[in-house]
Amino acid sequence: MTAQLSKKSEAWSARFNEPVSDLVKRYTASVFFDKRLAEVDIQGSLAHAEMLAHQNIISAEDHTEIRRGMMQIQDEIAAGTFEWLLDLEDVHLNIEKRLTELVGDAGKRLHTGRSRNDQVATDIRLYLRGEIDNIVGLLRELRLALLDLAEQHADTILPGFTHLQVAQPITFGHHMLAYVEMFGRDAERMLDARKRVNRLPLGAAALAGTTFAIDRERVAKTLGFEDVCHNSLDAVSDRDFAIEFCAAAALVMTHVSRMSEELVLWMSPRVGFIDIADRFCTGSSIMPQKKNPDVPELARGKTGRVNGHLIALLTLMKGQPLAYNKDNQEDKEPLFDTVDTVTDTLRIFADMARGITVKPEAMRAAALQGYATATDLADYLVKKGLPFRDAHEAVAHAVRVCVDRNCDLSDLTLEEMRAFSTLIEQDIFDVLTLEGSVAARDHVGGTAPQQVRKQIARVRALLG
Amino acid sequence: MTAQLSKKSEAWSARFNEPVSDLVKRYTASVFFDKRLAEVDIQGSLAHAEMLAHQNIISAEDHTEIRRGMMQIQDEIAAGTFEWLLDLEDVHLNIEKRLTELVGDAGKRLHTGRSRNDQVATDIRLYLRGEIDNIVGLLRELRLALLDLAEQHADTILPGFTHLQVAQPITFGHHMLAYVEMFGRDAERMLDARKRVNRLPLGAAALAGTTFAIDRERVAKTLGFEDVCHNSLDAVSDRDFAIEFCAAAALVMTHVSRMSEELVLWMSPRVGFIDIADRFCTGSSIMPQKKNPDVPELARGKTGRVNGHLIALLTLMKGQPLAYNKDNQEDKEPLFDTVDTVTDTLRIFADMARGITVKPEAMRAAALQGYATATDLADYLVKKGLPFRDAHEAVAHAVRVCVDRNCDLSDLTLEEMRAFSTLIEQDIFDVLTLEGSVAARDHVGGTAPQQVRKQIARVRALLG
Amino acid sequence: MTAQLSKKSEAWSARFNEPVSDLVKRYTASVFFDKRLAEVDIQGSLAHAEMLAHQNIISAEDHTEIRRGMMQIQDEIAAGTFEWLLDLEDVHLNIEKRLTELVGDAGKRLHTGRSRNDQVATDIRLYLRGEIDNIVGLLRELRLALLDLAEQHADTILPGFTHLQVAQPITFGHHMLAYVEMFGRDAERMLDARKRVNRLPLGAAALAGTTFAIDRERVAKTLGFEDVCHNSLDAVSDRDFAIEFCAAAALVMTHVSRMSEELVLWMSPRVGFIDIADRFCTGSSIMPQKKNPDVPELARGKTGRVNGHLIALLTLMKGQPLAYNKDNQEDKEPLFDTVDTVTDTLRIFADMARGITVKPEAMRAAALQGYATATDLADYLVKKGLPFRDAHEAVAHAVRVCVDRNCDLSDLTLEEMRAFSTLIEQDIFDVLTLEGSVAARDHVGGTAPQQVRKQIARVRALLG
Amino acid sequence: MTAQLSKKSEAWSARFNEPVSDLVKRYTASVFFDKRLAEVDIQGSLAHAEMLAHQNIISAEDHTEIRRGMMQIQDEIAAGTFEWLLDLEDVHLNIEKRLTELVGDAGKRLHTGRSRNDQVATDIRLYLRGEIDNIVGLLRELRLALLDLAEQHADTILPGFTHLQVAQPITFGHHMLAYVEMFGRDAERMLDARKRVNRLPLGAAALAGTTFAIDRERVAKTLGFEDVCHNSLDAVSDRDFAIEFCAAAALVMTHVSRMSEELVLWMSPRVGFIDIADRFCTGSSIMPQKKNPDVPELARGKTGRVNGHLIALLTLMKGQPLAYNKDNQEDKEPLFDTVDTVTDTLRIFADMARGITVKPEAMRAAALQGYATATDLADYLVKKGLPFRDAHEAVAHAVRVCVDRNCDLSDLTLEEMRAFSTLIEQDIFDVLTLEGSVAARDHVGGTAPQQVRKQIARVRALLG
Repeated sequence: MTAQLSKKSEAWSARFNEPVSDLVKRYTASVFFDKRLAEVDIQGSLAHAEMLAHQNIISAEDHTEIRRGMMQIQDEIAAGTFEWLLDLEDVHLNIEKRLTELVGDAGKRLHTGRSRNDQVATDIRLYLRGEIDNIVGLLRELRLALLDLAEQHADTILPGFTHLQVAQPITFGHHMLAYVEMFGRDAERMLDARKRVNRLPLGAAALAGTTFAIDRERVAKTLGFEDVCHNSLDAVSDRDFAIEFCAAAALVMTHVSRMSEELVLWMSPRVGFIDIADRFCTGSSIMPQKKNPDVPELARGKTGRVNGHLIALLTLMKGQPLAYNKDNQEDKEPLFDTVDTVTDTLRIFADMARGITVKPEAMRAAALQGYATATDLADYLVKKGLPFRDAHEAVAHAVRVCVDRNCDLSDLTLEEMRAFSTLIEQDIFDVLTLEGSVAARDHVGGTAPQQVRKQIARVRALLG
Repeated sequence: MTAQLSKKSEAWSARFNEPVSDLVKRYTASVFFDKRLAEVDIQGSLAHAEMLAHQNIISAEDHTEIRRGMMQIQDEIAAGTFEWLLDLEDVHLNIEKRLTELVGDAGKRLHTGRSRNDQVATDIRLYLRGEIDNIVGLLRELRLALLDLAEQHADTILPGFTHLQVAQPITFGHHMLAYVEMFGRDAERMLDARKRVNRLPLGAAALAGTTFAIDRERVAKTLGFEDVCHNSLDAVSDRDFAIEFCAAAALVMTHVSRMSEELVLWMSPRVGFIDIADRFCTGSSIMPQKKNPDVPELARGKTGRVNGHLIALLTLMKGQPLAYNKDNQEDKEPLFDTVDTVTDTLRIFADMARGITVKPEAMRAAALQGYATATDLADYLVKKGLPFRDAHEAVAHAVRVCVDRNCDLSDLTLEEMRAFSTLIEQDIFDVLTLEGSVAARDHVGGTAPQQVRKQIARVRALLG
Repeated sequence: MTAQLSKKSEAWSARFNEPVSDLVKRYTASVFFDKRLAEVDIQGSLAHAEMLAHQNIISAEDHTEIRRGMMQIQDEIAAGTFEWLLDLEDVHLNIEKRLTELVGDAGKRLHTGRSRNDQVATDIRLYLRGEIDNIVGLLRELRLALLDLAEQHADTILPGFTHLQVAQPITFGHHMLAYVEMFGRDAERMLDARKRVNRLPLGAAALAGTTFAIDRERVAKTLGFEDVCHNSLDAVSDRDFAIEFCAAAALVMTHVSRMSEELVLWMSPRVGFIDIADRFCTGSSIMPQKKNPDVPELARGKTGRVNGHLIALLTLMKGQPLAYNKDNQEDKEPLFDTVDTVTDTLRIFADMARGITVKPEAMRAAALQGYATATDLADYLVKKGLPFRDAHEAVAHAVRVCVDRNCDLSDLTLEEMRAFSTLIEQDIFDVLTLEGSVAARDHVGGTAPQQVRKQIARVRALLG
Repeated sequence: MTAQLSKKSEAWSARFNEPVSDLVKRYTASVFFDKRLAEVDIQGSLAHAEMLAHQNIISAEDHTEIRRGMMQIQDEIAAGTFEWLLDLEDVHLNIEKRLTELVGDAGKRLHTGRSRNDQVATDIRLYLRGEIDNIVGLLRELRLALLDLAEQHADTILPGFTHLQVAQPITFGHHMLAYVEMFGRDAERMLDARKRVNRLPLGAAALAGTTFAIDRERVAKTLGFEDVCHNSLDAVSDRDFAIEFCAAAALVMTHVSRMSEELVLWMSPRVGFIDIADRFCTGSSIMPQKKNPDVPELARGKTGRVNGHLIALLTLMKGQPLAYNKDNQEDKEPLFDTVDTVTDTLRIFADMARGITVKPEAMRAAALQGYATATDLADYLVKKGLPFRDAHEAVAHAVRVCVDRNCDLSDLTLEEMRAFSTLIEQDIFDVLTLEGSVAARDHVGGTAPQQVRKQIARVRALLG
């Protein structure tokens, strides 16, 4: 009986008449992807053992032995000498079996009062909590990089687009701040998700709790959980936290994809608003002249991957009866890949933001194309007393004349303008400049440079 | 010029050489689905007008006229006499045009300092905030209904399943509490999403802010928004809040689908754990004996719909350059249908929960099938000193003998049991009862009836 | 008993103790969206009745009566006088009840040997078959419009982009042909899906077949089905055909979205490659100068909707046990909306393709920017004997010099070029022209104008 | 210049001022997942080289050298001695660089007239074509296993369910045939997709074709492609084939998930219709008695993964401008994982189908519960002249009486039955037997055992 963990299937083999087939072993094993949970698995086991000892469910000696064994296992994993066995199915049984090899009966006592169901749920939460903290840090770094860029270009005129048509002049700094807001909301969402990640399932055992006199609050405190899961069935079958995280991650990638779309567009030669440092670009195997913005393109593509993982998890949980079913093993790969994708992407974007060269002349030239200050003319007429709808209509007539003549509004003479409204006077020419237009939008959230600087200061203060 | 809004295309027609084709009008119009925003559109316009008047951007008289006109429009809509015109494209232009018919130039001044881009963003947020509050209320009602059911059956034995195999005995009340927890997290998520919904985009105008001396905080206060959006580009192009809501809604439906799966299964004649009141069931057009659990089945199916809407919105936003693009019009139908689906489903489930008849005998019979107390035997041996892994193995042998003999563990004699471990004594027979097993899981989150009652009290207190 | 269909619930009410609640009625009814199946429902019923009469299961008189009644119902529906009742749940019971009102017992005999399960499956297939044929026709029209555009611009130089960087010169006609290929594959997929749509489920009855001596092949022949479904359980529960259609539709919309992305980009003032006729564009409520490419933007946004419906249907079917479950009622709205979206979009795109104005000068100017003929220089060197990799490297050096000098490759003197490779001679200047580059790609699928014309001819021949 | 491929970035480095950062290298490299394309990459290169030699674009000597080098590379890969370098980015550059090491200038000439864009497109298609053929073979094996099971149980009575309520008796063989039909459609779809996979993109070069006098049909023939892609832009940017394959794969997994749902349910002790051989099941780490149907549960869960990959690919392609963008690199991992998931799952299901033990007594007992023959009674009345709707109503009354009395229809006396309709006579008792009911559904697709056997024979003939 001492060898019952030497092969995983023997953790429960006495009830079975034939061993699991090799094909099934490979199909159902998770050790090749869940071994990244080793560190948190040990952390969780140590907290569990400490509580078992404190509650006199295991002896102090067993506890000491378990700690000793786990320390050695950590060393073996760090050194790369730990032998991961497919036959032992998952990270949990691999570690427990090694522990039993190292410390004997104490190892066999570790699983008292818990089950793999609550153990794995605890591990994933510990893992994800750490990754969320890391991602929140990366979002902060990216925002700081964008704030710096915004500050450098708080006055740099850029055509503001709607429908990719020139709408109104804005500043490049103002444009960057839009992304600062988006990534700020992403951090909020991550922290909201974290609250629901940070609850302890351990103690739920297989599904119903355990007959041992465990102290779940003690384990929660040791592991830094804010609360315990209040229902054992829910504790082992809940994967909401993974889905909520993936949904938040999908929004991060959505924002990344929007920024990427713009970077790719802005680097296209006809637009030419920016350049991206060579170290973020690649060339072509056939066209010697190419310098391609690979990083934003790839990041844009990776949006699909994260959306896909979100759907994978939602589909996984749909219609599952309580409590744990094997389906749930499929929660890990989508979650892990989402974490990796978001983490890598944010890191590289924070770096790349500092490798963007802005070309103010190209931006200015573009802003002069497309009647960007037409709204200013309409607003001017309103301030002179014309109802907005009538002012809008008058300006539309003026624009049409300019389109036909292929000239800008400011190219019209005062007389010509007065044909559209006699309210127009000499002061209109200041209104029609790009700088005048931008400076006039001077309220919270507006594009006026001084508002841009206020926002930069506000967010910097928030980021501490 | 007075007629420029009589057809929507004429809101901007002076610049165009040919009218929009009828096919295009139908393709691009939103009035047939966005008219549900009429109430919040008027609410937003009134707050905007009040601020314009306070800031002396429009006169007090204009403000009075606008209020008068809007009141009449509200009456017309309520009475069903308001004429919605496809030619006017959307809810906003329909209302503004009618206002101008009713109050003349004052109506034309309403759009001063705003654009449809920030107007529609404000409307959706006002709408969604109200719907979230409604959904949170429905989640509360559903949880109260489930708490009542749980309380009635805090002691009713049910087999706890993992892998749809009998695992350990639990109580039906405990099982219901798992759903109480899930729907509780859903309410948390809705309220977290609400924070990000409840920020005011108005004042962003088309994308850059406006040249009028507006007071955005004043409008925010009037409309009950907690904050203003701090970047105008982001304000008009952000649809995160809709996506975050749909993700939270997808989790609501995931929980509904899990509960539905169980209800359908439990009502299947071979299981027969419950009956659902006739008023929630339908029959067959061909099989006269059928009574089908249509409501849970349909609700389970509707999960797909909400997952689909989430993907629709994520796909919509992927790779969109700033700021507003027409793509964004596609945000409404998925959002509206998600709101309707979740709202209807929660309402009907709160009602249906009170129409569930529990059949304790069938549950008890099922719990006696499948060696549900095998873990209790293993725990018993551990408490007598056997390491858990060895205890597990000993019980597995005992189960195998019982499987071969087609009997339960408690059918073995003490002698027979002692063949598996001499640690077993007469007191084992109490341990192997269903009631003993359930009562022994007596810690926070465990299935012991007294723990179930504690949880019911805790949640009732939270729900106020 | 004669009134048993006057309220739908009474189609099966005798077995029930209480009526369905109003909330449940609304939740479970489908008549408001499935009434679009009325025509095919009648068509299917007539074919079923004809077979029943032919097999002597109903009398010739009954058959005559059923035909007479159905003709009147068709007239009533066409005239808008048919009264659709929520109480009768769906299109099928509404029509059957009206039939019984009109023709008495003959109407009650119509449902002999069938069930709603096989009836609705038949209806959807008949409906979808017709819609597929319509879509295939619209794809043909769109391709013809694109072929015309391609032919007009078989020689018009356009910069070919990869990574939105100028890659090599191509022709606008060649670019249009890429979409002709995509929409051609879409038509192939629609026709492949049609094969699986076009199989008759009728005769499967509820799930097991019927005890009447029906002739399924006869019904299949009457209705134009190519085969019958060979398993009754599968016949009533299969929704593969709807999913397969939605997947094909998602690809249609993916192609539309790619084309839309380009149209929007090409119409952006910095690019300015095309103009889209005013009738496909809209303006702004605030910016009088705007002309926005609303149709392609909206179409791009609608991609999300169709992807979402695909996921809705896949989620719906996941894990459903056989045979029919109420979940399946959720198949219709996603399917119908997918049909409508694809149909409207293709129709408008075929029209819009003829409203595109090409601006060859802007395209040519852009092609001259970005070293589009660098690959031609590399190929030139290869033809002179240099291995490709070495030629590529030599040209990369030349490009770098040009980037530093801000000049084109063709601006270098022969001497300067020979610094990179002495293989370069005077004939290089022909190679570096846009026309020379394009004409040189003269093989099947290449961008040479004569190849473009060959492809146009090939596809025109295929389209007949 | 000879070392330009020793680091991948140097394939295009001459144009760049700084090397790609290590983070970017890792982010953009694909070699760790695309090396599975090595075999087809070499196959494609050999066909390309053969054509180049035949067209006198390279010399016969170069061709010989390339073949020699490639043979050695194949050996190195097979032996595991090939060194894959991250610096060389992808499988293509790794192999080309090694080739150049081995055979010098001949290796540098291989890339003449092609680009990585058309090369990778060719590789994926070759790879996928092979995998489709494999999957079609596995579908055949699974169907054969199910046919055997169906044949063994062509007469075994099983309750047919709709809404998980007992509907009508069917046979287990008939039920299995439903899956045979589903997996048959899956094979059809795979073969339809294969047609569109099996077209050659090579020759499209970067996007526009090449200036060399290539012969694309020759390469197509060598590689077994049925056609060439007729537009070079489309050839390099098309990923329809991957999406279409993933959609077909999602349907395979949908069918697998439905079957899995039933297997899990049937193995649940309350149902107990089947047992699955131990080698496909696993136990519990805590509950010694458990035997869990892990394989079907995990397979059901994997449905989400494949649906997710489909969405990943659709999202990836949405709104991408032509021609190739780096986004497209993200096509591989979802595709590869879909192939692996479907392949592994089908293999294990074909095996598991032969490990299913059917328990006819449990099935029969269940069929006797739930008035499964009520429809037969209604049909009986119809055959005696009662209109179907009236017959249905009469039986509903009878069922309600039986429900109240807790007895079966066949437990009523003839007198009692005649209270519902005087048309009922002594012969009714044969009609109400399970065997009578099943045998009576004797038409194509019906559940009568002789029809089941006919279908088995039909499909066996098709499978050859």
